[in-house]
Amino acid sequence: MINQQLMGKILTRLNIPNVGMGINQGIAIPVGISNRHVHLSQQDVDALFGHGYQITPFKDLKQPGQFAAKECVMVVGPKGSISKVRVLGPVRPQSQLEISKADCFALGIKAPVRSSGDLAGSGNAVLMGPAGYVELKQQVICAQRHIHMNNIDARALNVTNGQKVHVKTEGERSLIFDEVIVRVSDKFALEFHIDTDEANAAGVRNNDSVFIVS
Amino acid sequence: MINQQLMGKILTRLNIPNVGMGINQGIAIPVGISNRHVHLSQQDVDALFGHGYQITPFKDLKQPGQFAAKECVMVVGPKGSISKVRVLGPVRPQSQLEISKADCFALGIKAPVRSSGDLAGSGNAVLMGPAGYVELKQQVICAQRHIHMNNIDARALNVTNGQKVHVKTEGERSLIFDEVIVRVSDKFALEFHIDTDEANAAGVRNNDSVFIVS
Repeated sequence: MINQQLMGKILTRLNIPNVGMGINQGIAIPVGISNRHVHLSQQDVDALFGHGYQITPFKDLKQPGQFAAKECVMVVGPKGSISKVRVLGPVRPQSQLEISKADCFALGIKAPVRSSGDLAGSGNAVLMGPAGYVELKQQVICAQRHIHMNNIDARALNVTNGQKVHVKTEGERSLIFDEVIVRVSDKFALEFHIDTDEANAAGVRNNDSVFIVS
Repeated sequence: MINQQLMGKILTRLNIPNVGMGINQGIAIPVGISNRHVHLSQQDVDALFGHGYQITPFKDLKQPGQFAAKECVMVVGPKGSISKVRVLGPVRPQSQLEISKADCFALGIKAPVRSSGDLAGSGNAVLMGPAGYVELKQQVICAQRHIHMNNIDARALNVTNGQKVHVKTEGERSLIFDEVIVRVSDKFALEFHIDTDEANAAGVRNNDSVFIVS
Protein backbone atom coordinates (compact mmCIF):
# COMPACT_ATOMS: atom_id res chain seq x y z
CA MET A 1 0.00 0.00 0.00
CA ILE A 2 1.30 3.44 -0.93
CA ASN A 3 1.19 5.89 1.96
CA GLN A 4 0.71 9.65 1.66
CA GLN A 5 4.37 10.48 2.17
CA LEU A 6 5.54 8.05 -0.52
CA MET A 7 2.79 9.25 -2.85
CA GLY A 8 3.94 12.83 -2.28
CA LYS A 9 7.55 11.92 -3.08
CA ILE A 10 6.48 10.18 -6.29
CA LEU A 11 4.42 13.20 -7.33
CA THR A 12 7.33 15.49 -6.58
CA ARG A 13 9.71 13.30 -8.61
CA LEU A 14 7.24 13.41 -11.50
CA ASN A 15 7.21 17.22 -11.13
CA ILE A 16 3.47 17.39 -10.55
CA PRO A 17 2.85 20.64 -8.70
CA ASN A 18 1.62 20.57 -5.11
CA VAL A 19 -1.57 22.61 -5.22
CA GLY A 20 -4.55 22.41 -2.91
CA MET A 21 -4.98 19.58 -0.46
CA GLY A 22 -5.22 15.84 -0.29
CA ILE A 23 -3.36 12.64 -1.02
CA ASN A 24 -2.79 13.37 -4.69
CA GLN A 25 -1.73 16.94 -4.22
CA GLY A 26 1.07 17.13 -1.67
CA ILE A 27 3.18 15.53 1.00
CA ALA A 28 1.33 15.13 4.26
CA ILE A 29 3.28 16.56 7.21
CA PRO A 30 2.30 15.19 10.64
CA VAL A 31 1.43 17.68 13.39
CA GLY A 32 3.42 17.58 16.64
CA ILE A 33 1.89 19.71 19.39
CA SER A 34 4.33 21.08 21.95
CA ASN A 35 2.78 21.53 25.35
CA ARG A 36 4.70 23.75 27.79
CA HIS A 37 8.07 22.15 28.58
CA VAL A 38 11.58 22.90 29.75
CA HIS A 39 15.04 21.92 28.52
CA LEU A 40 17.55 21.91 31.40
CA SER A 41 21.30 22.29 31.73
CA GLN A 42 23.00 19.75 34.02
CA GLN A 43 23.79 22.62 36.40
CA ASP A 44 20.08 23.42 36.70
CA VAL A 45 19.21 19.69 37.03
CA ASP A 46 21.62 19.63 39.99
CA ALA A 47 19.96 22.66 41.58
CA LEU A 48 16.39 21.38 41.04
CA PHE A 49 16.79 17.65 41.73
CA GLY A 50 20.05 17.30 43.67
CA HIS A 51 23.77 17.28 42.87
CA GLY A 52 24.67 14.71 40.20
CA TYR A 53 21.03 13.82 39.49
CA GLN A 54 20.40 12.26 36.07
CA ILE A 55 17.05 12.85 34.32
CA THR A 56 15.31 9.64 33.28
CA PRO A 57 13.73 8.99 29.86
CA PHE A 58 9.97 8.46 30.14
CA LYS A 59 8.83 8.54 26.51
CA ASP A 60 10.70 8.97 23.22
CA LEU A 61 9.74 11.99 21.13
CA LYS A 62 9.41 11.84 17.37
CA GLN A 63 12.64 13.82 16.90
CA PRO A 64 15.47 11.23 17.10
CA GLY A 65 17.32 11.20 20.43
CA GLN A 66 14.86 13.53 22.15
CA PHE A 67 12.73 12.32 25.04
CA ALA A 68 10.18 13.42 27.61
CA ALA A 69 11.74 12.81 31.03
CA LYS A 70 9.97 11.41 34.05
CA GLU A 71 10.84 14.64 35.87
CA CYS A 72 8.59 17.68 36.06
CA VAL A 73 9.07 21.11 37.66
CA MET A 74 6.84 23.95 38.81
CA VAL A 75 7.06 27.21 36.86
CA VAL A 76 6.49 30.37 38.89
CA GLY A 77 5.82 33.88 37.58
CA PRO A 78 4.71 37.14 39.18
CA LYS A 79 1.00 36.36 38.67
CA GLY A 80 0.78 32.58 39.13
CA SER A 81 2.35 29.18 38.89
CA ILE A 82 1.95 26.06 36.77
CA SER A 83 2.87 22.69 38.24
CA LYS A 84 3.96 19.51 36.49
CA VAL A 85 5.77 21.16 33.58
CA ARG A 86 7.57 18.37 31.74
CA VAL A 87 11.37 18.25 31.49
CA LEU A 88 12.63 17.20 28.03
CA GLY A 89 15.96 15.49 27.47
CA PRO A 90 18.79 15.16 26.86
CA VAL A 91 20.29 18.02 28.91
CA ARG A 92 21.44 21.06 26.96
CA PRO A 93 24.19 23.64 27.49
CA GLN A 94 21.57 26.20 28.59
CA SER A 95 18.12 25.80 30.13
CA GLN A 96 15.15 27.04 28.08
CA LEU A 97 11.48 27.18 29.06
CA GLU A 98 8.88 27.06 26.26
CA ILE A 99 5.35 28.16 27.12
CA SER A 100 2.23 29.31 25.30
CA LYS A 101 0.81 32.85 25.22
CA ALA A 102 -2.02 31.54 27.42
CA ASP A 103 0.63 30.43 29.94
CA CYS A 104 2.23 33.89 29.71
CA PHE A 105 -1.06 35.46 30.82
CA ALA A 106 -1.54 32.92 33.64
CA LEU A 107 2.04 33.36 34.91
CA GLY A 108 2.44 37.09 34.26
CA ILE A 109 5.52 36.39 32.15
CA LYS A 110 6.36 38.24 28.93
CA ALA A 111 7.88 35.72 26.54
CA PRO A 112 8.51 36.62 22.89
CA VAL A 113 7.83 34.36 19.91
CA ARG A 114 11.25 32.98 19.04
CA SER A 115 13.07 30.05 17.49
CA SER A 116 14.65 27.60 19.93
CA GLY A 117 18.00 28.92 21.21
CA ASP A 118 17.30 32.55 20.19
CA LEU A 119 17.12 33.74 23.79
CA ALA A 120 18.59 37.28 24.02
CA GLY A 121 15.92 39.58 25.44
CA SER A 122 13.48 36.72 26.11
CA GLY A 123 11.47 36.16 29.29
CA ASN A 124 12.24 35.34 32.92
CA ALA A 125 10.76 32.75 35.28
CA VAL A 126 11.53 30.72 38.38
CA LEU A 127 11.60 26.91 38.31
CA MET A 128 10.93 24.94 41.51
CA GLY A 129 12.07 21.35 41.92
CA PRO A 130 12.21 18.93 44.84
CA ALA A 131 15.77 19.98 45.77
CA GLY A 132 15.64 23.71 45.10
CA TYR A 133 14.93 26.44 42.59
CA VAL A 134 16.61 28.19 39.68
CA GLU A 135 16.02 31.59 38.16
CA LEU A 136 15.70 31.62 34.37
CA LYS A 137 16.91 34.95 33.01
CA GLN A 138 16.15 35.64 29.35
CA GLN A 139 15.44 31.93 28.95
CA VAL A 140 11.67 31.82 28.37
CA ILE A 141 10.13 31.83 24.86
CA CYS A 142 6.97 31.04 22.96
CA ALA A 143 8.27 28.71 20.27
CA GLN A 144 7.93 29.94 16.70
CA ARG A 145 5.95 27.52 14.55
CA HIS A 146 8.32 25.44 12.42
CA ILE A 147 8.70 22.26 10.39
CA HIS A 148 11.47 19.78 11.15
CA MET A 149 12.65 17.74 8.19
CA ASN A 150 15.69 15.97 6.80
CA ASN A 151 17.41 16.75 3.50
CA ILE A 152 15.41 14.16 1.56
CA ASP A 153 12.15 15.70 2.80
CA ALA A 154 13.44 19.18 1.92
CA ARG A 155 14.20 18.13 -1.65
CA ALA A 156 10.83 16.39 -1.99
CA LEU A 157 9.03 19.46 -0.63
CA ASN A 158 11.22 21.83 -2.65
CA VAL A 159 12.17 23.99 0.34
CA THR A 160 15.44 24.97 2.02
CA ASN A 161 16.62 25.47 5.59
CA GLY A 162 15.39 28.79 7.01
CA GLN A 163 12.72 29.31 4.34
CA LYS A 164 9.32 30.56 5.46
CA VAL A 165 6.31 28.65 4.11
CA HIS A 166 2.52 28.60 4.50
CA VAL A 167 0.96 25.52 6.09
CA LYS A 168 -2.72 24.66 5.68
CA THR A 169 -4.83 22.68 8.13
CA GLU A 170 -8.24 21.18 7.42
CA GLY A 171 -11.53 20.89 9.30
CA GLU A 172 -14.08 23.20 10.90
CA ARG A 173 -11.29 25.40 12.28
CA SER A 174 -9.24 25.23 9.08
CA LEU A 175 -6.60 27.92 8.71
CA ILE A 176 -3.35 28.73 6.96
CA PHE A 177 -0.32 29.41 9.16
CA ASP A 178 2.03 31.99 7.63
CA GLU A 179 5.51 32.50 8.99
CA VAL A 180 6.35 28.81 9.32
CA ILE A 181 10.12 28.31 9.43
CA VAL A 182 11.64 25.27 7.72
CA ARG A 183 14.41 23.63 9.76
CA VAL A 184 16.46 21.04 7.89
CA SER A 185 18.87 18.55 9.48
CA ASP A 186 19.64 14.91 8.92
CA LYS A 187 18.90 14.51 12.65
CA PHE A 188 15.29 15.64 12.16
CA ALA A 189 12.10 13.70 11.47
CA LEU A 190 9.34 15.32 9.39
CA GLU A 191 7.03 17.13 11.83
CA PHE A 192 5.11 20.44 11.99
CA HIS A 193 5.64 21.86 15.49
CA ILE A 194 3.03 24.20 16.95
CA ASP A 195 2.06 25.03 20.50
CA THR A 196 -1.22 24.31 22.29
CA ASP A 197 -2.75 27.72 21.46
CA GLU A 198 -2.06 27.14 17.78
CA ALA A 199 -3.31 23.55 17.84
CA ASN A 200 -6.54 24.58 19.59
CA ALA A 201 -7.08 27.48 17.19
CA ALA A 202 -6.68 25.14 14.22
CA GLY A 203 -8.62 22.28 15.83
CA VAL A 204 -5.82 19.82 15.08
CA ARG A 205 -4.38 16.92 17.09
CA ASN A 206 -1.05 15.15 17.15
CA ASN A 207 -0.33 13.30 13.89
CA ASP A 208 -3.06 15.07 11.93
CA SER A 209 -1.86 15.83 8.40
CA VAL A 210 -1.07 19.34 7.21
CA PHE A 211 0.27 20.54 3.88
CA ILE A 212 2.59 23.23 2.61
CA VAL A 213 0.71 25.58 0.28
CA SER A 214 2.15 28.35 -1.82
CA MET B 1 -8.24 62.68 7.97
CA ILE B 2 -9.57 59.66 6.12
CA ASN B 3 -9.66 56.56 8.31
CA GLN B 4 -9.16 53.01 7.10
CA GLN B 5 -12.85 52.14 7.17
CA LEU B 6 -13.84 55.17 5.09
CA MET B 7 -10.97 54.52 2.68
CA GLY B 8 -12.16 50.93 2.30
CA LYS B 9 -15.71 52.07 1.53
CA ILE B 10 -14.43 54.52 -1.08
CA LEU B 11 -12.33 51.79 -2.70
CA THR B 12 -15.28 49.43 -2.72
CA ARG B 13 -17.53 52.09 -4.28
CA LEU B 14 -14.90 52.63 -6.95
CA ASN B 15 -14.91 48.86 -7.52
CA ILE B 16 -11.19 48.50 -6.76
CA PRO B 17 -10.68 44.89 -5.70
CA ASN B 18 -9.59 44.14 -2.13
CA VAL B 19 -6.40 42.15 -2.56
CA GLY B 20 -3.54 41.82 -0.13
CA MET B 21 -3.26 43.95 2.96
CA GLY B 22 -3.13 47.53 4.09
CA ILE B 23 -4.96 50.79 4.06
CA ASN B 24 -5.29 51.00 0.30
CA GLN B 25 -6.41 47.45 -0.18
CA GLY B 26 -9.31 46.69 2.11
CA ILE B 27 -11.55 47.60 5.01
CA ALA B 28 -9.90 47.09 8.38
CA ILE B 29 -12.03 44.95 10.69
CA PRO B 30 -11.27 45.32 14.42
CA VAL B 31 -10.56 42.15 16.43
CA GLY B 32 -12.75 41.38 19.44
CA ILE B 33 -11.38 38.55 21.60
CA SER B 34 -13.98 36.56 23.53
CA ASN B 35 -12.65 35.16 26.78
CA ARG B 36 -14.70 32.38 28.36
CA HIS B 37 -18.14 33.74 29.34
CA VAL B 38 -21.69 32.72 30.03
CA HIS B 39 -25.09 34.02 28.89
CA LEU B 40 -27.78 33.24 31.49
CA SER B 41 -31.54 32.81 31.46
CA GLN B 42 -33.41 34.64 34.25
CA GLN B 43 -34.33 31.23 35.68
CA ASP B 44 -30.64 30.36 35.98
CA VAL B 45 -29.82 33.83 37.40
CA ASP B 46 -32.41 33.10 40.09
CA ALA B 47 -30.82 29.73 40.88
CA LEU B 48 -27.26 31.08 40.95
CA PHE B 49 -27.73 34.48 42.62
CA GLY B 50 -31.12 34.30 44.36
CA HIS B 51 -34.77 34.57 43.35
CA GLY B 52 -35.53 37.78 41.43
CA TYR B 53 -31.86 38.82 41.25
CA GLN B 54 -31.01 41.25 38.43
CA ILE B 55 -27.56 41.14 36.83
CA THR B 56 -25.79 44.51 36.83
CA PRO B 57 -23.99 46.06 33.84
CA PHE B 58 -20.26 46.46 34.50
CA LYS B 59 -18.91 47.38 31.07
CA ASP B 60 -20.54 47.88 27.67
CA LEU B 61 -19.42 45.55 24.89
CA LYS B 62 -18.85 46.74 21.35
CA GLN B 63 -22.01 44.99 20.13
CA PRO B 64 -24.87 47.46 20.85
CA GLY B 65 -26.95 46.58 23.94
CA GLN B 66 -24.58 43.84 25.10
CA PHE B 67 -22.66 44.19 28.35
CA ALA B 68 -20.28 42.40 30.69
CA ALA B 69 -22.05 42.06 34.02
CA LYS B 70 -20.49 42.55 37.45
CA GLU B 71 -21.45 38.96 38.23
CA CYS B 72 -19.19 35.94 37.71
CA VAL B 73 -19.73 32.22 38.26
CA MET B 74 -17.55 29.17 38.74
CA VAL B 75 -17.61 26.56 35.95
CA VAL B 76 -17.14 22.96 37.06
CA GLY B 77 -16.36 19.94 34.89
CA PRO B 78 -15.31 16.35 35.58
CA LYS B 79 -11.60 17.23 35.55
CA GLY B 80 -11.43 20.71 37.04
CA SER B 81 -13.03 24.07 37.66
CA ILE B 82 -12.51 27.65 36.51
CA SER B 83 -13.56 30.48 38.79
CA LYS B 84 -14.57 34.04 37.91
CA VAL B 85 -16.17 33.26 34.55
CA ARG B 86 -17.87 36.47 33.46
CA VAL B 87 -21.65 36.70 32.99
CA LEU B 88 -22.70 38.67 29.89
CA GLY B 89 -26.01 40.48 29.60
CA PRO B 90 -28.79 41.01 28.92
CA VAL B 91 -30.37 37.72 30.00
CA ARG B 92 -31.38 35.32 27.21
CA PRO B 93 -34.14 32.72 26.82
CA GLN B 94 -31.57 29.93 27.34
CA SER B 95 -28.22 29.85 29.16
CA GLN B 96 -25.12 29.21 27.05
CA LEU B 97 -21.52 28.78 28.19
CA GLU B 98 -18.75 29.66 25.70
CA ILE B 99 -15.27 28.32 26.46
CA SER B 100 -12.03 27.69 24.59
CA LYS B 101 -10.58 24.30 23.64
CA ALA B 102 -7.90 24.93 26.29
CA ASP B 103 -10.72 25.32 28.84
CA CYS B 104 -12.27 22.07 27.56
CA PHE B 105 -9.05 20.23 28.42
CA ALA B 106 -8.78 21.89 31.85
CA LEU B 107 -12.42 21.13 32.71
CA GLY B 108 -12.75 17.74 31.04
CA ILE B 109 -15.68 19.03 28.98
CA LYS B 110 -16.30 18.15 25.34
CA ALA B 111 -17.68 21.24 23.64
CA PRO B 112 -18.06 21.40 19.86
CA VAL B 113 -17.22 24.39 17.67
CA ARG B 114 -20.60 25.99 16.99
CA SER B 115 -22.33 29.25 16.20
CA SER B 116 -24.10 30.91 19.11
CA GLY B 117 -27.50 29.33 19.75
CA ASP B 118 -26.72 26.12 17.82
CA LEU B 119 -26.75 23.98 20.94
CA ALA B 120 -28.20 20.53 20.09
CA GLY B 121 -25.61 17.91 21.00
CA SER B 122 -23.24 20.44 22.58
CA GLY B 123 -21.44 20.09 25.93
CA ASN B 124 -22.46 19.89 29.57
CA ALA B 125 -21.15 21.71 32.66
CA VAL B 126 -22.13 22.81 36.14
CA LEU B 127 -22.24 26.48 37.13
CA MET B 128 -21.80 27.48 40.79
CA GLY B 129 -23.00 30.83 42.10
CA PRO B 130 -23.34 32.35 45.57
CA ALA B 131 -26.96 31.11 45.92
CA GLY B 132 -26.75 27.71 44.26
CA TYR B 133 -25.84 25.78 41.15
CA VAL B 134 -27.32 24.91 37.75
CA GLU B 135 -26.59 22.06 35.39
CA LEU B 136 -26.03 23.08 31.77
CA LYS B 137 -27.14 20.27 29.45
CA GLN B 138 -26.11 20.63 25.81
CA GLN B 139 -25.42 24.30 26.50
CA VAL B 140 -21.61 24.52 26.22
CA ILE B 141 -19.86 25.46 22.96
CA CYS B 142 -16.59 26.72 21.57
CA ALA B 143 -17.73 29.73 19.55
CA GLN B 144 -17.15 29.52 15.83
CA ARG B 145 -15.05 32.41 14.55
CA HIS B 146 -17.28 35.03 12.92
CA ILE B 147 -17.58 38.64 11.84
CA HIS B 148 -20.40 40.85 13.06
CA MET B 149 -21.41 43.62 10.69
CA ASN B 150 -24.38 45.74 9.67
CA ASN B 151 -25.88 45.91 6.18
CA ILE B 152 -23.79 48.91 5.15
CA ASP B 153 -20.60 47.06 6.13
CA ALA B 154 -21.80 43.96 4.24
CA ARG B 155 -22.34 45.96 1.07
CA ALA B 156 -18.99 47.68 1.43
CA LEU B 157 -17.24 44.35 2.00
CA ASN B 158 -19.28 42.65 -0.73
CA VAL B 159 -20.40 39.76 1.49
CA THR B 160 -23.75 38.39 2.63
CA ASN B 161 -25.14 36.93 5.83
CA GLY B 162 -23.98 33.34 6.37
CA GLN B 163 -21.15 33.55 3.82
CA LYS B 164 -17.80 32.02 4.79
CA VAL B 165 -14.74 34.20 4.20
CA HIS B 166 -10.98 34.12 4.84
CA VAL B 167 -9.55 36.62 7.31
CA LYS B 168 -5.86 37.53 7.40
CA THR B 169 -3.93 38.75 10.42
CA GLU B 170 -0.48 40.35 10.37
CA GLY B 171 2.66 40.07 12.48
CA GLU B 172 5.12 37.39 13.54
CA ARG B 173 2.27 34.91 14.08
CA SER B 174 0.43 35.98 10.93
CA LEU B 175 -2.17 33.53 9.65
CA ILE B 176 -5.28 33.26 7.54
CA PHE B 177 -8.44 32.03 9.25
CA ASP B 178 -10.66 29.99 6.93
CA GLU B 179 -14.22 29.16 7.87
CA VAL B 180 -15.11 32.63 9.15
CA ILE B 181 -18.88 33.12 9.15
CA VAL B 182 -20.31 36.52 8.24
CA ARG B 183 -23.21 37.56 10.48
CA VAL B 184 -25.17 40.58 9.28
CA SER B 185 -27.70 42.54 11.32
CA ASP B 186 -28.46 46.22 11.75
CA LYS B 187 -27.96 45.57 15.47
CA PHE B 188 -24.32 44.58 14.92
CA ALA B 189 -21.11 46.61 15.00
CA LEU B 190 -18.22 45.59 12.74
CA GLU B 191 -16.05 43.17 14.74
CA PHE B 192 -14.12 39.93 14.10
CA HIS B 193 -14.85 37.60 17.03
CA ILE B 194 -12.33 34.92 17.95
CA ASP B 195 -11.58 33.15 21.20
CA THR B 196 -8.43 33.31 23.32
CA ASP B 197 -6.82 30.24 21.69
CA GLU B 198 -7.27 31.81 18.27
CA ALA B 199 -6.06 35.25 19.41
CA ASN B 200 -2.95 33.74 21.01
CA ALA B 201 -2.23 31.62 17.95
CA ALA B 202 -2.46 34.69 15.71
CA GLY B 203 -0.65 36.97 18.16
CA VAL B 204 -3.41 39.57 17.95
CA ARG B 205 -4.99 41.82 20.57
CA ASN B 206 -8.34 43.53 20.90
CA ASN B 207 -8.87 46.21 18.24
CA ASP B 208 -6.01 45.03 16.05
CA SER B 209 -6.97 45.27 12.37
CA VAL B 210 -7.65 42.23 10.21
CA PHE B 211 -8.78 42.00 6.59
CA ILE B 212 -11.00 39.78 4.49
CA VAL B 213 -8.93 38.14 1.74
CA SER B 214 -10.19 36.06 -1.13
